[in-house]
Amino acid sequence: MKKQKSVKASFTTMTELVLPNDTNTLNNLMGGRMMHWLDIVSAISAQKHSNRIVVTASVDNVSFKNSIKLGSVVTLEAQVTRSFNSSIEVHVNVYAEDIPSGTKFKSNEAFLTFVAVDQSGNPIDVPEAIPETEEDMRLYEGALRRRQLRLVLAGRMKPEEAVELKSIFNLQQE
Amino acid sequence: MKKQKSVKASFTTMTELVLPNDTNTLNNLMGGRMMHWLDIVSAISAQKHSNRIVVTASVDNVSFKNSIKLGSVVTLEAQVTRSFNSSIEVHVNVYAEDIPSGTKFKSNEAFLTFVAVDQSGNPIDVPEAIPETEEDMRLYEGALRRRQLRLVLAGRMKPEEAVELKSIFNLQQE
Amino acid sequence: MKKQKSVKASFTTMTELVLPNDTNTLNNLMGGRMMHWLDIVSAISAQKHSNRIVVTASVDNVSFKNSIKLGSVVTLEAQVTRSFNSSIEVHVNVYAEDIPSGTKFKSNEAFLTFVAVDQSGNPIDVPEAIPETEEDMRLYEGALRRRQLRLVLAGRMKPEEAVELKSIFNLQQE
Amino acid sequence: MKKQKSVKASFTTMTELVLPNDTNTLNNLMGGRMMHWLDIVSAISAQKHSNRIVVTASVDNVSFKNSIKLGSVVTLEAQVTRSFNSSIEVHVNVYAEDIPSGTKFKSNEAFLTFVAVDQSGNPIDVPEAIPETEEDMRLYEGALRRRQLRLVLAGRMKPEEAVELKSIFNLQQE
Amino acid sequence: MKKQKSVKASFTTMTELVLPNDTNTLNNLMGGRMMHWLDIVSAISAQKHSNRIVVTASVDNVSFKNSIKLGSVVTLEAQVTRSFNSSIEVHVNVYAEDIPSGTKFKSNEAFLTFVAVDQSGNPIDVPEAIPETEEDMRLYEGALRRRQLRLVLAGRMKPEEAVELKSIFNLQQE
Amino acid sequence: MKKQKSVKASFTTMTELVLPNDTNTLNNLMGGRMMHWLDIVSAISAQKHSNRIVVTASVDNVSFKNSIKLGSVVTLEAQVTRSFNSSIEVHVNVYAEDIPSGTKFKSNEAFLTFVAVDQSGNPIDVPEAIPETEEDMRLYEGALRRRQLRLVLAGRMKPEEAVELKSIFNLQQE
Repeated sequence: MKKQKSVKASFTTMTELVLPNDTNTLNNLMGGRMMHWLDIVSAISAQKHSNRIVVTASVDNVSFKNSIKLGSVVTLEAQVTRSFNSSIEVHVNVYAEDIPSGTKFKSNEAFLTFVAVDQSGNPIDVPEAIPETEEDMRLYEGALRRRQLRLVLAGRMKPEEAVELKSIFNLQQE
Repeated sequence: MKKQKSVKASFTTMTELVLPNDTNTLNNLMGGRMMHWLDIVSAISAQKHSNRIVVTASVDNVSFKNSIKLGSVVTLEAQVTRSFNSSIEVHVNVYAEDIPSGTKFKSNEAFLTFVAVDQSGNPIDVPEAIPETEEDMRLYEGALRRRQLRLVLAGRMKPEEAVELKSIFNLQQE
Repeated sequence: MKKQKSVKASFTTMTELVLPNDTNTLNNLMGGRMMHWLDIVSAISAQKHSNRIVVTASVDNVSFKNSIKLGSVVTLEAQVTRSFNSSIEVHVNVYAEDIPSGTKFKSNEAFLTFVAVDQSGNPIDVPEAIPETEEDMRLYEGALRRRQLRLVLAGRMKPEEAVELKSIFNLQQE
Repeated sequence: MKKQKSVKASFTTMTELVLPNDTNTLNNLMGGRMMHWLDIVSAISAQKHSNRIVVTASVDNVSFKNSIKLGSVVTLEAQVTRSFNSSIEVHVNVYAEDIPSGTKFKSNEAFLTFVAVDQSGNPIDVPEAIPETEEDMRLYEGALRRRQLRLVLAGRMKPEEAVELKSIFNLQQE
Repeated sequence: MKKQKSVKASFTTMTELVLPNDTNTLNNLMGGRMMHWLDIVSAISAQKHSNRIVVTASVDNVSFKNSIKLGSVVTLEAQVTRSFNSSIEVHVNVYAEDIPSGTKFKSNEAFLTFVAVDQSGNPIDVPEAIPETEEDMRLYEGALRRRQLRLVLAGRMKPEEAVELKSIFNLQQE
Repeated sequence: MKKQKSVKASFTTMTELVLPNDTNTLNNLMGGRMMHWLDIVSAISAQKHSNRIVVTASVDNVSFKNSIKLGSVVTLEAQVTRSFNSSIEVHVNVYAEDIPSGTKFKSNEAFLTFVAVDQSGNPIDVPEAIPETEEDMRLYEGALRRRQLRLVLAGRMKPEEAVELKSIFNLQQE
């Protein structure tokens, strides 16, 4: 039987300080640096779930609403949502805080997927991810739908076969 | 009447060498570094189109199929596909080449959107983007559909109103 | 009356991946990179306590017992222990984990002090730090003794006046 | 008989320019960057003494009195003070200079210890360090006392056995 | 017979954004960062010509006339001019563009030479470089003269033997 | 009368450790990183002579003979040779040392010129540079010839007017 592991065990917090080289000429954090951090924190989370080296398989649509200023503290919280054979989906919440001015807001949310590999780089099965809280459950359930969207976007699944994906039309704010 | 500008004027090529700090313990390029490069090359392309400072608004789903080795040369080619008021969509093709071994392949493809802003950070209208080649035209036409997908995913458009998005079920390999 | 704030509010977790440029020729993390991380995580913690810009005033003796390998995940957990006028002492625990091999150990422990400053760089009073748990209390109580040791080492207090410091001869494993 | 080597042979000067990413939001050098430089310059000095790879064993209390501005030139001068079996103590003086404004001051002083290791990372004996000048001699003599303080702080020596450490109550301005 | 290869095949474009850490206290690009980019883009060009690992052999005189501001886009265009046994000369044109202000100018021009090496680091012959355009031809012809200047400057050729070099007194604006 | 200053006052030593990101796939230092260091150390030397902000005006031909391995210590020693109005020539000697293997050699020699500027970036006169030792004198005397070579190479002096330059045919090993 496949090994099981609570998604809680993969929870990872990363804190970053926005430095000058991370910013554009308006002194706001550049999107690419944020993407870099998202990849690192969620790779560590996927590593914790699988106890394996992991490689990035995909990054879902990420949107940027509010600008984050130079000197801000950015906190990224990653946790595995669900696994499929050798693949692992990770969800990340990002918060930005300008401490001296007392401003704090949720700046981003993202889903990344990873493949666990052995030392030769070949895919290898990972434990089943077990959700615990209601929120864990909600993320677990959406994973299949997001997976179908990725496959359709990558041209590896025919849209008519994406049964779960049709529910995307009820998705929203995930 | 709104200013018009050929998408060709925004074409931007960036070349990067994969250095040790860009790689994981298998000596392959980490996805986050690639995302960082995607953001920079497409921001420059959007700047060329708008002659403005631009800020990242979103990065569409990016998938990673082949690993890129330490010492490889990565070439990113970005070009604007279409603009909407102050927003600009950029398409990027990424090629990886391990020169001594003679390996070269297309590694990624991505769409990013930017908002052009003035010195105070307020959105400002940009020229209309005019496609020229057949390929430019194809990318121009898909832009509306991708925009609706972004809005639905961000919970800012009701799925039933996403008229163009329904054609996503015919979208493939874009 | 002076504002009070629980030390819990300053708790900060930072996660770092050991990259090639962080390592020496034995592929182990260099001490200076660790010191750099210690300073950043504890400065953020001191910022959270004071809601001010903070500048490093001192770093207490840090010792390095076990080597940390390339690719390891380093987790730093910082929390304020006590404050004195404009100065804030922060305690940091550092854990290193080589996930694929399943190795995890506590690698370092450190105390750093910061001074909260206003926009002109002048010292400014901070809230009183209130310990909650037994461990918080133990760290709170040791703060005075460590402060005297810093002052004596900096030649700013005569050893015979360092009443609390004499207890250092009972200090151990802190 | 053990090999002897003058401390002069380990003298190392490092010069660094304070760049934007090294500074906080007040445009002053962050303490953690200074710690990073201290580690590198003193590791090179310990390498010169031992002709071995060295790993950081400890960094003694470092205090920061004056802020160092963006664009300043920081000069670090390191020299071995004394060795014990495989361990080497290095003393560093740090000077900061804002050249256009003609400001120059001593900003820090630090003691770091290193362990010389062979290719497998095992400790290996190093030459005896021979002081020459009066200043060399003073630093040589204080080394034993500082070593006892480190051992007591690390809980590896009982305070009552730290015979030399008692003289710390006469230590000042070292 | 020796393999031949058009110089066009080595054409390489690199685009860089001037970030805070690349600038001096006047917010202008530092010369050393430019030199670093020149080396990378021309090494990639030499790699493309030779399909080998290459090492820098020399950088000819580079002059800096105009300052390049923070936030500018720097475009480097490299192409091989001529090869000699295992050595390859590359020519680079550098353009700087401050997009929001609409400023664009040619900022530098440089010649670098590389040696192609095998996996053990030993020099290995490269294909003959075949010029195509009139400009390619002009650069090809000047290569011998520049080579003699390098050899004389390095003390490896007696000035009286530098037959082609005498024409330097007719060289201008190259 | 113009202020005079001994060239000794500008002497600057910089020490760098060759880290993974500084190396190519053969684990040897890349030329571009060396050029970057040359620029920084000589800019600091020119600053010390002029007590001004300085900007790089040119880097003379630099050649690379021996490869420098990962983990080596690179020492750069810069000193002003001569000044002309607002311009300053700096000479740099570079030594590379692989300490554990006991290898040490002179790896490079370079001449860079800088222009001293005021806060608005306008050129400003600098003190006259006074040579002291025989070696200082030799470098001082060659400065005029090197200056003419730079002007001829930049197309700003007609070769027939470069009186001193003709002696280049006696130059060698400088």
